[in-house]
Amino acid sequence: MADHELRVGVIGVGLMGTDHAHRIARRLANARLVAVSDPDTARAQAVAGLYDGVRAIDDVLDLVDDDDVDAVVIASPGPVHEEQVLACLEAGKYTLCEKPLTTESASSLRLVRAERDRGKPLIQLGFMRRFDPEYVRMKELLSTGRLGRTLVVHNTHRNKDASDSFRSEMIVRDSLVHEVDVARFVFDEEIEEITVLSPAPSGHSPRGVVDPQVAIFRMTGGGVVTNEVFIRSQVGYEVRCEVVCERGTVIAGRPWGGLYSTAVGEADGSWGGAVPADFRARFARAYDLELQAWVDACHRGEVVGPSTWDGYAATAVCEAGLKSLATGAPVPVDLADVATLG
Amino acid sequence: MADHELRVGVIGVGLMGTDHAHRIARRLANARLVAVSDPDTARAQAVAGLYDGVRAIDDVLDLVDDDDVDAVVIASPGPVHEEQVLACLEAGKYTLCEKPLTTESASSLRLVRAERDRGKPLIQLGFMRRFDPEYVRMKELLSTGRLGRTLVVHNTHRNKDASDSFRSEMIVRDSLVHEVDVARFVFDEEIEEITVLSPAPSGHSPRGVVDPQVAIFRMTGGGVVTNEVFIRSQVGYEVRCEVVCERGTVIAGRPWGGLYSTAVGEADGSWGGAVPADFRARFARAYDLELQAWVDACHRGEVVGPSTWDGYAATAVCEAGLKSLATGAPVPVDLADVATLG
Amino acid sequence: MADHELRVGVIGVGLMGTDHAHRIARRLANARLVAVSDPDTARAQAVAGLYDGVRAIDDVLDLVDDDDVDAVVIASPGPVHEEQVLACLEAGKYTLCEKPLTTESASSLRLVRAERDRGKPLIQLGFMRRFDPEYVRMKELLSTGRLGRTLVVHNTHRNKDASDSFRSEMIVRDSLVHEVDVARFVFDEEIEEITVLSPAPSGHSPRGVVDPQVAIFRMTGGGVVTNEVFIRSQVGYEVRCEVVCERGTVIAGRPWGGLYSTAVGEADGSWGGAVPADFRARFARAYDLELQAWVDACHRGEVVGPSTWDGYAATAVCEAGLKSLATGAPVPVDLADVATLG
Amino acid sequence: MADHELRVGVIGVGLMGTDHAHRIARRLANARLVAVSDPDTARAQAVAGLYDGVRAIDDVLDLVDDDDVDAVVIASPGPVHEEQVLACLEAGKYTLCEKPLTTESASSLRLVRAERDRGKPLIQLGFMRRFDPEYVRMKELLSTGRLGRTLVVHNTHRNKDASDSFRSEMIVRDSLVHEVDVARFVFDEEIEEITVLSPAPSGHSPRGVVDPQVAIFRMTGGGVVTNEVFIRSQVGYEVRCEVVCERGTVIAGRPWGGLYSTAVGEADGSWGGAVPADFRARFARAYDLELQAWVDACHRGEVVGPSTWDGYAATAVCEAGLKSLATGAPVPVDLADVATLG
Repeated sequence: MADHELRVGVIGVGLMGTDHAHRIARRLANARLVAVSDPDTARAQAVAGLYDGVRAIDDVLDLVDDDDVDAVVIASPGPVHEEQVLACLEAGKYTLCEKPLTTESASSLRLVRAERDRGKPLIQLGFMRRFDPEYVRMKELLSTGRLGRTLVVHNTHRNKDASDSFRSEMIVRDSLVHEVDVARFVFDEEIEEITVLSPAPSGHSPRGVVDPQVAIFRMTGGGVVTNEVFIRSQVGYEVRCEVVCERGTVIAGRPWGGLYSTAVGEADGSWGGAVPADFRARFARAYDLELQAWVDACHRGEVVGPSTWDGYAATAVCEAGLKSLATGAPVPVDLADVATLG
Repeated sequence: MADHELRVGVIGVGLMGTDHAHRIARRLANARLVAVSDPDTARAQAVAGLYDGVRAIDDVLDLVDDDDVDAVVIASPGPVHEEQVLACLEAGKYTLCEKPLTTESASSLRLVRAERDRGKPLIQLGFMRRFDPEYVRMKELLSTGRLGRTLVVHNTHRNKDASDSFRSEMIVRDSLVHEVDVARFVFDEEIEEITVLSPAPSGHSPRGVVDPQVAIFRMTGGGVVTNEVFIRSQVGYEVRCEVVCERGTVIAGRPWGGLYSTAVGEADGSWGGAVPADFRARFARAYDLELQAWVDACHRGEVVGPSTWDGYAATAVCEAGLKSLATGAPVPVDLADVATLG
Repeated sequence: MADHELRVGVIGVGLMGTDHAHRIARRLANARLVAVSDPDTARAQAVAGLYDGVRAIDDVLDLVDDDDVDAVVIASPGPVHEEQVLACLEAGKYTLCEKPLTTESASSLRLVRAERDRGKPLIQLGFMRRFDPEYVRMKELLSTGRLGRTLVVHNTHRNKDASDSFRSEMIVRDSLVHEVDVARFVFDEEIEEITVLSPAPSGHSPRGVVDPQVAIFRMTGGGVVTNEVFIRSQVGYEVRCEVVCERGTVIAGRPWGGLYSTAVGEADGSWGGAVPADFRARFARAYDLELQAWVDACHRGEVVGPSTWDGYAATAVCEAGLKSLATGAPVPVDLADVATLG
Repeated sequence: MADHELRVGVIGVGLMGTDHAHRIARRLANARLVAVSDPDTARAQAVAGLYDGVRAIDDVLDLVDDDDVDAVVIASPGPVHEEQVLACLEAGKYTLCEKPLTTESASSLRLVRAERDRGKPLIQLGFMRRFDPEYVRMKELLSTGRLGRTLVVHNTHRNKDASDSFRSEMIVRDSLVHEVDVARFVFDEEIEEITVLSPAPSGHSPRGVVDPQVAIFRMTGGGVVTNEVFIRSQVGYEVRCEVVCERGTVIAGRPWGGLYSTAVGEADGSWGGAVPADFRARFARAYDLELQAWVDACHRGEVVGPSTWDGYAATAVCEAGLKSLATGAPVPVDLADVATLG
């Protein structure tokens, strides 16, 4: 490893990967962007060209094996994650893998096992909420025990809009999955049953798409989580978590914080502020902190944050959620027995 | 009817009835408290003695038939409501009946029919939320159509504490029933299915009592309502309603409005305010407005606000909710066919 | 006095008097509107005609002396208050006098003396803020002593707009006067010096009118109050009071409480609520509570709320404020010596 | 300059300098901490020892002249700033100088002139508020022109507590100075007159210390700014700015944003959150953004953010403020004529 800078290669330079590349190049301490790779090699070269001393490497696996790459960020589409994560494990490189770990629980479980077989954790999953300052403080407050046990959680997840190709299943896999991780994070428990209800859809939903959705989780300790996921809310990106405990409640993500103004409106005066336009505006800080925490942990030879197991569990819950979406009935979540993982 | 004052008799002078008696005597315009009645005649006499010119009448039915009583407030326990409401209908007197209309849907339906047979509505149900200024403004905003159709609602209903005799069933019948009415009010639709989930209870719940509860309603138009009801939250009385529409959302009852202070706390400084201690503090204004609206409507010869049908529907939903509480499974709500009511 | 209803006559049926007449007729308990009087006799007859059994009396002083009038509300213009209040004192009738008591401190002081000479207080001044629930709770919180002594106060007073005839002096007399009373109410002290600063005016101010204004009060105990008064803010009616104490702060009147919504806006989504359009919307409840408290006190034979002295002090401070408005320099407030009032 | 990392030396490793050193070493991109210097050489060595490859240099001026130091952060006490800034100018090194620029306006003006004489700006002043995300968004919103001209501003500046050695003058120089810069930043104008009022002090103030203080600024364009500065508020660190414009208002720094909880309190339940303990908690993010902006600008060969002129003007306003503190009367601010600066 370089004297004091972690040399990072980024796989996949779509929206998320490009953001991460820029973050590493321009905002993180003790890390340096050294390489990018993407099946769209022209795009990889364009991104590499934005920064001094960054190479575009045609073959993703070459990037993983490159001696000048200390650590890898995987921001490629979910279906190719298994092969890429396995390569990183074999190369013994610290890896930050964007969610999902993989798109099916079976392959995710294979990665959990492969990492355990190596004997040393290397993979951090990209559930950035766990690094958002409000979620962090909420978790800290819950951990003090002052509020007693957590009983019920209500998550709100609203997006401004989406293309017609964003179908009901993707709402479960790509949006609800964040609330799946939040529920597991808040309770420190697994989800043992999921129900996905289909309200009459908004007129802004394409024909056949269930949007909004309401999902119910039952936790292994008996807690209940209700979730509203609404991808075409037209308003903006609003993510909130209300935790109800035995002796108090906590809310993270109230949109009514922040800059406040009154102004002359159309019809009358109003007070308030702006709802963030998208997840990048809302969670920019969480991404920065997530990647910096990852870089710092790499320097210490550790892995922090969500693990491959968290990635596997999230995928398994969403699989059950997809079955429930089809029927509206509760579906149990069958997780591998941790004890038998080796 | 007296020249300009509605002469009101109050049946039942427990907590709620005593409040209403005082409200009529001291805070309402164009109404006068003239009589009270209660099986505990000593208590009735004590309450009557607080105000000039108020009689305690031993027999409830005598109060209803008294020529000096223009209108009746029923604040007795639910099980005796059927007989008392019937007496009011027979006497042709305007009546404000505290919820529940009756304790079973069959008897409630009998009252709906009895009122229709008389040909002229006389009964207003005591769902005071419909008169709370924030709920009123929320309903007005929804009615403008600017936000599009209502899709999903999340209700929060927390109480500070309750005696051990307040069992799981009472949480459904006495607490959740308010959210049942709110859901019907917000959507202008019936509830066609209810599910009551049983989270692992708070350590402050007596053995065998399910508290908090999470209830799910499906509306006839396909909307979904999630409800958290927590009677022993330890904190205070917190009632909130978040409505999610096609082009915007509304929240009524945010506790973080109102008087705000910072102060030197135990461990550190904090900002915030006080959660209302109970429903009387939170809804004092709603009760005033509810009763004044009733008095004003009586003067005009009208009935406003929730009807016997609203009382019947709420009771029927809670009956289904009790069945669901036992199993955790969805239970359909079977309402009488309005068309056949005559 | 009638058996249980206070028979009230209202003098002056402009905007404010008409509101009060309606309030007494339709919203107050144990009070009855029996007479109105106004120099515009046609208008008085029109208002009287809205309610059963209300007479229009041509001569104001006849109304005061009428045997069927138990108590009087004065809502006429300030310049005629002295004569009318004196008549009420002579007739020995309880009186609620809208602010200002009179338009000059000399005449106000004559009324203070006249009332003291009679030996029994009869007059309540119409500073309704003292009955607004948030100001009341703020005062209660300060009175507990938990926050220590009050040191500094910042008042915000914004109105949506005003006609061009509302000049700089009227901003002091009619708007700032409320903050004068708030400062005296919060500190329980007199104002000993006032400075009125003239910021460069808004483009919405007529030529020669100073709007907004910034006023500074020094209290007799050494406290300092800063006030922003802005009558043509274009947005709405916003009245706030922030009190800074030795061990904490309090804010009454945060506009960001209350009903909350998000919605699709012009350019982007936003969260927030509506600023009240005017003082009648903001303080409707305070007026109701003020008049009910007055009626209840009349029944008990007492006077509550702000007194003629409070009215005199407010007028004297505003007189000094007008001098300061002309120069921008601090002007001392010379109040009569209470001890010599007799 | 090194290939891609700015090599930074930090002068002064007290509280602020140590924070900055850590920030550069651990949180900033494209910068490296290479040297520290402090009269307390043992402390400098201790701080240097925390990071790999950082030298402690005994003589401050040696650090400035060191060939391996590309840029300098000055976090030493104000009285030694003039000599150090001059050395940086002579060495031609980009410099971030913590406020104050110097402790008297005469020496500050000498530095303004010295920098202009060199022909190329090198110095950024450490007014971090200008990099706080809320202040940035507020300024952006004002700059759109949608709210019209800025008319009046009210700043709130509260600190939890201070040692007895923090005297009245230091409240002006070290605390109010931030509001001086905010006023100039918000209006894009100079302050032409300052008044510092002395309310009766809090019981937590040492004998002879004026705390809280109320300061009034008049801007060159006629705007008025009121400021409350309270260093021993006991509660926490609360910094807020309310800007009143012709067609709307903006508030930055509302403490009631952020994480929200209810909990069982001493006497009753309450809602709210925690007030930040100190300026480092409140403005941690602003400091990060300030230093990253500085590093990025150095790489581009530019200077961004507040200038030596801003530092000079702030010092000159505070000098006038100290005179006003002694008398309570307005004191004009005499700034050098920019045109004659050469």
